[in-house]
Amino acid sequence: MAFRTMEWVAEETCLRLLDQRFLPGDVRYRDLRTPKEVAGAIRDMTVRGAPAIGVSAAYGMAQAALLAEAAGGPVLAALDAADAVLRASRPTAVNLFWALDRMALLWRNGADAARLLEEAGRIEREDIAVNDAIAAHALAILPQEVTFFHHCNTGALAAGGVGTALGIIRRAHEAGHKVFAYLDETRPRLQGAKLSSFELMEYGVPHAIVVDGASAHVMRRRKVDVAVVGCDRVAANGDTANKIGTYNLALAAQDNDVPFYVACPTSTIDMATQDGSGIEIEERDTAEILRIGDTVIAPEGAPVFNPAFDVTPHRLIAGLITEYGIVRPPFDVNLKHLFLRENALAGRVPDA
Amino acid sequence: MAFRTMEWVAEETCLRLLDQRFLPGDVRYRDLRTPKEVAGAIRDMTVRGAPAIGVSAAYGMAQAALLAEAAGGPVLAALDAADAVLRASRPTAVNLFWALDRMALLWRNGADAARLLEEAGRIEREDIAVNDAIAAHALAILPQEVTFFHHCNTGALAAGGVGTALGIIRRAHEAGHKVFAYLDETRPRLQGAKLSSFELMEYGVPHAIVVDGASAHVMRRRKVDVAVVGCDRVAANGDTANKIGTYNLALAAQDNDVPFYVACPTSTIDMATQDGSGIEIEERDTAEILRIGDTVIAPEGAPVFNPAFDVTPHRLIAGLITEYGIVRPPFDVNLKHLFLRENALAGRVPDA
Repeated sequence: MAFRTMEWVAEETCLRLLDQRFLPGDVRYRDLRTPKEVAGAIRDMTVRGAPAIGVSAAYGMAQAALLAEAAGGPVLAALDAADAVLRASRPTAVNLFWALDRMALLWRNGADAARLLEEAGRIEREDIAVNDAIAAHALAILPQEVTFFHHCNTGALAAGGVGTALGIIRRAHEAGHKVFAYLDETRPRLQGAKLSSFELMEYGVPHAIVVDGASAHVMRRRKVDVAVVGCDRVAANGDTANKIGTYNLALAAQDNDVPFYVACPTSTIDMATQDGSGIEIEERDTAEILRIGDTVIAPEGAPVFNPAFDVTPHRLIAGLITEYGIVRPPFDVNLKHLFLRENALAGRVPDA
Repeated sequence: MAFRTMEWVAEETCLRLLDQRFLPGDVRYRDLRTPKEVAGAIRDMTVRGAPAIGVSAAYGMAQAALLAEAAGGPVLAALDAADAVLRASRPTAVNLFWALDRMALLWRNGADAARLLEEAGRIEREDIAVNDAIAAHALAILPQEVTFFHHCNTGALAAGGVGTALGIIRRAHEAGHKVFAYLDETRPRLQGAKLSSFELMEYGVPHAIVVDGASAHVMRRRKVDVAVVGCDRVAANGDTANKIGTYNLALAAQDNDVPFYVACPTSTIDMATQDGSGIEIEERDTAEILRIGDTVIAPEGAPVFNPAFDVTPHRLIAGLITEYGIVRPPFDVNLKHLFLRENALAGRVPDA
């Protein structure tokens, strides 16, 4: 593979991230040397994708402890500060808070830097396993010839492993299914055109980029078997926050009898949030809409509203494809049962 | 007003068009000196918007006759050639064919160049009156405080007069309604961001540009009273071809109980086409998706599917706002009755 999304460079105590803001033109890496720099890289979208954000934040916490121990400074204060700055980097994706909570359970109970680094590595390895398990469960329900509709980027650039929704598409191709994928370009940041198309060209998966407004038309006039997306936070009733435009895609799917699936690591499920109305939606800089590269695409001073995510009502979702299997409606009941079972297994996935 | 969309310059026998490809940055005009140049300007979208295309094509036919008469050449052959090249410029908007048919009824029956020029001017003046009548019928059903959702550009840049859907928004503002408008940016050509925002800033109408994928989210989390769009061709059953993304917007409106209206000059209704499946959908250059200005937004050689229009099923439409009033469902029956009445009135609108 021609790129590596993230890498912990032990000898330099730094997190090396592929700077996704320069894709597909440049494969350029960026070394983050402090937790504050890691938080900055999450905020400015050097790294994005809920699972990748979680893994990055975990390494940021390990880094805080390693740097403080090396400097002989107060480790707990450094961890406290790192936790705060990472927690404030982006509001919507719950994996960030999930990973920080998991790290906090250790460092608040006296774990040292070595143990925290081990845990960050474990979170990354688990994510790889979770990605593969999600793809495996999805493949079991896919026809031999399968045309997907996909939104944003949810592949290897968005996760520790092959990714979630795009990981399914890639694995289906590798498993010998005859795959075609329509990719929403995904305005405003164009992750579909810039990142998902970049990945699928790497893997040799036939696809076509379409503008976000074309999804209903494509489903009406061409054969589409399944729509599959990732998620940034899933509420206890199944309402799903994901990249802006997901709710529109789900409506296009519903109106054309195309089943709409969410590829959903259980780390993204937030049982503390009852439904989608309780999910905070990040609003991002108006420049994301007003400029593309150096090109200004609207009048000087034009007003803009730029929500980064939307919430797809659970009634539009055919299933949540988790690492444990596919959760079907009614989600409120079945997600509760899933977590009872997860607790019974006393771990998220079998150890790698 | 700081711009004029189109102007017939009699002393130069030329059609002067605002070159909309340079908006909002430059207000630049282009003089089209032959029918072939007019057809080229329709094809390359110097001028766009179904009504404006119809008016431009009518002037192109008058120009053909004027040039041939001045040159002492065979006028009928020139008209035949002009009709063919204009008819081939764009396939979806029916106003083009409607205007060419109306001109053909004259020139095939011996009308001279002066008569054809008079008819082109009449088509333009009628369009102004039709725009105003559509706005008047719409205003009668709008609340005092009204938030619109709008797609593409359907204003003075798209028509002879104030436009259709955007004309309603402008007239509501001028009539003292407290107006706010959300504008789909409308990928790939960004007519919402580039043209509709440009117009609304001119008129002082408060608004916000949003990405096309945000419409369902905006309707869910903010107050939107009505969605209103233009149209390129309306079939006899009410199915409506319009800019790609319209069908998605109609689904967003339906799911959020926002009434969805089509501002629809009767010249856009094609009673010869039974339903939307019979409407040819233009596919445009992949470069529209792959580049924005000088910025390449996808990998080299990335595959693209770029339909320029979609068809909104009639069941999603609350009403067609025509110059004669608002046609309600069932459209198949009511459109038939509308045309019976139109024939009875023996004219499209009262002469200006």
